[in-house]
Amino acid sequence: MRYAEMSKEKLKERLEEQRIKYGEFKAENLRLDMSRGKPCREQLDLSAPMLDVLSGASDMKTENGFDTRNYALLDGIPEIKRLYADVLNVKEGQIIAGGSSSLNMMYDTVQRGMQFGFGGFTPWNKLEKVKFVCPAPGYDRHFAVTETFGIEMVAAEMTEDGPDMDAVEKICGDDGSVKGIWCVPRFSNPTGAVYSDETVGRLAAMKTAAEDFRIFWDNAYSVHALRDGARELADILPECEKAGNPDRVFIFASTSKVTFAGGGVAFFASSGRNIKEAKAIMSMQTIGPDKVNQLRHARFLKDKENLTAHMKKHAAIIKPKFDAVLEILERELSGLGIAEWTNPDGGYFISVNAFDFTAKRVVELAGDAGVILTPAGATYPYGRDPRDRNIRFAPTLPPLSELVTASEIFVLCVKIAAAERLLEAAESGD
Amino acid sequence: MRYAEMSKEKLKERLEEQRIKYGEFKAENLRLDMSRGKPCREQLDLSAPMLDVLSGASDMKTENGFDTRNYALLDGIPEIKRLYADVLNVKEGQIIAGGSSSLNMMYDTVQRGMQFGFGGFTPWNKLEKVKFVCPAPGYDRHFAVTETFGIEMVAAEMTEDGPDMDAVEKICGDDGSVKGIWCVPRFSNPTGAVYSDETVGRLAAMKTAAEDFRIFWDNAYSVHALRDGARELADILPECEKAGNPDRVFIFASTSKVTFAGGGVAFFASSGRNIKEAKAIMSMQTIGPDKVNQLRHARFLKDKENLTAHMKKHAAIIKPKFDAVLEILERELSGLGIAEWTNPDGGYFISVNAFDFTAKRVVELAGDAGVILTPAGATYPYGRDPRDRNIRFAPTLPPLSELVTASEIFVLCVKIAAAERLLEAAESGD
Repeated sequence: MRYAEMSKEKLKERLEEQRIKYGEFKAENLRLDMSRGKPCREQLDLSAPMLDVLSGASDMKTENGFDTRNYALLDGIPEIKRLYADVLNVKEGQIIAGGSSSLNMMYDTVQRGMQFGFGGFTPWNKLEKVKFVCPAPGYDRHFAVTETFGIEMVAAEMTEDGPDMDAVEKICGDDGSVKGIWCVPRFSNPTGAVYSDETVGRLAAMKTAAEDFRIFWDNAYSVHALRDGARELADILPECEKAGNPDRVFIFASTSKVTFAGGGVAFFASSGRNIKEAKAIMSMQTIGPDKVNQLRHARFLKDKENLTAHMKKHAAIIKPKFDAVLEILERELSGLGIAEWTNPDGGYFISVNAFDFTAKRVVELAGDAGVILTPAGATYPYGRDPRDRNIRFAPTLPPLSELVTASEIFVLCVKIAAAERLLEAAESGD
Repeated sequence: MRYAEMSKEKLKERLEEQRIKYGEFKAENLRLDMSRGKPCREQLDLSAPMLDVLSGASDMKTENGFDTRNYALLDGIPEIKRLYADVLNVKEGQIIAGGSSSLNMMYDTVQRGMQFGFGGFTPWNKLEKVKFVCPAPGYDRHFAVTETFGIEMVAAEMTEDGPDMDAVEKICGDDGSVKGIWCVPRFSNPTGAVYSDETVGRLAAMKTAAEDFRIFWDNAYSVHALRDGARELADILPECEKAGNPDRVFIFASTSKVTFAGGGVAFFASSGRNIKEAKAIMSMQTIGPDKVNQLRHARFLKDKENLTAHMKKHAAIIKPKFDAVLEILERELSGLGIAEWTNPDGGYFISVNAFDFTAKRVVELAGDAGVILTPAGATYPYGRDPRDRNIRFAPTLPPLSELVTASEIFVLCVKIAAAERLLEAAESGD
């Protein structure tokens, strides 16, 4: 029965029962962290053999004869560039292999826009105002970078096909201070949406008032399908070329959730012209990335086919976790009219919309019972979820047993918060 | 006999002989690169065992229980922080262990000053003018960073005790737009000078017109002595504290020339307040550095004592190279009055002052004979060596036999350029 249709007495009765159950959980003094999209130990162990790929006796030279242990190669070693050019479907001259953090590359790219500008246009620091479109719910760390630089964030609603393109086209077409958009185009953080071909085409081709408009294409989960048959993502770089906007997109990726989180290799892909522009500044910033780790990765991951097989092993570990959470959500919340959630084909998150104006309360209740969730609002710019309902659930890190307990507590908190809210409304309506 | 005292005829005769010898070298079609301070293969091999320190079966946890393969620890793992806190003689709360490039940390630090400012003061981007003092001859990559940000460089002359402190105190004391100074305080690039205790004390204590003045203390060669008994460097952080300028200095270091060049671990050390300020921005930029490589380094290098022993092995490999170059410089150039050079106790370079206004010509002649030298002028801000005489000679990379050939060619070029110059002067005086 839907909560909204329950009598006040019935709701009070339910709330009573739920609070008793909640008290029992609380007494267990749990500490379960569901807050961040971290791989679990079994996933990290998949890449343990990578630590034996290089030894003291190894040939440490790249295929073009550079000793990876010495200075050189600002844009990375050829074998790892080729592998990820293949994964991202770009040309070898369109990619840079960097250090271990793609977030760092994104931050640095925004900072270059602020300090130096792109394509010969005015550095963003010198403009009155700079704005970015932020599809929401979205990735909190993107929003944090934007906010750090004082860039105004304009939210656009996420749909199953990517951001609401009518809204995006209007915002970018009308306002020359809109210089960028953040996108996680495949298995979006947190909704799991994969941008449709139409969305990709419209992003590449749309008219923008700013000539130096850039798409920050964070393809973090490009190879992170949970099942076969997940929607493929169209290649945005050729779409941009075709539309006459060849320099519009900056693509980011990393092996953080392929090999080791924070100990992988990050990538930046874009038009040849943008790569050249980025390298001109990067050559002042560093002599080159850690090529030893790049060689280790290239020899371990080998090629796209092998990498895809490796990712299937990841899926085999984490899909049961997604399934367990979804089973509990379905069992406990379906038909109540107080929550909806995503069932993603890949990525690291389940996005839950709790009853309107209860997300903060759910996170608070869960936290008090020892279940740490991403703060409510984190998935919106400035932490402002207009309906205070979205919660990002990250099922990958904990062992299955803990995950089940955390999910049971979570659904209980969703119910309590909804009942409280409805009762408040009923009281104030008395 | 000094060249200046030779007759025109004698000089011409010498030049004739030298040109014949030069032609013979040129006919060999050599390609010898003396341009950059790179470790040689034997040095890199010293750290080959580091590649076997971690294996797929290793415990990958830090001493405080974090899995190095997962996200966490923005400022690095405790064991590597403790090791380098010990090496740099700072407290553990005063150090950040980062990625593989200390140059990247320096660039990022200057960029933070430009974008956000330090200590609550106005971001440097918002000021009419920002200047840095650049002791010269100095490190070309420092100058490149400064120039990239449009910071005006003011040269100060290097002495055997560090920069001319009378000049530095005057520049920094008078002009509030002077916000920083670049220093390579031990085995300076390229002169090999070690800053005296007095220099360190004066830098820490001097009155600066800018309240947000910062010393960029690139302690790249802190542990890179070529022989016992090299001058020790005073600790600048406590000197700054004592003088009431606790936040004045940013210290940088890395293991690039301890383990693998570009594949090591970089460090940033400063006051607790500066570390906190840096981390606040860094937490937007990255989730953390490559902790797997940090763990590998911590377990391989172990402690300061072991690291010092490891550096002695480096010295055993490269000191004979320095000696060979110095022997040739001494044999071929002493007493001619056309060159002087340094005999450093550590670091990676020999700094040669050729005959006034001939450095460009020497580098050109050497290049034409297949010996690549750092471009003349590179050791001065804007590439402007006022007397066009300083040349940085980097003896570490080539095998000894090549180094000897390159040095023979180099001294020949120094002689040719000096003779040419003196003859020109004589002609124009006719």
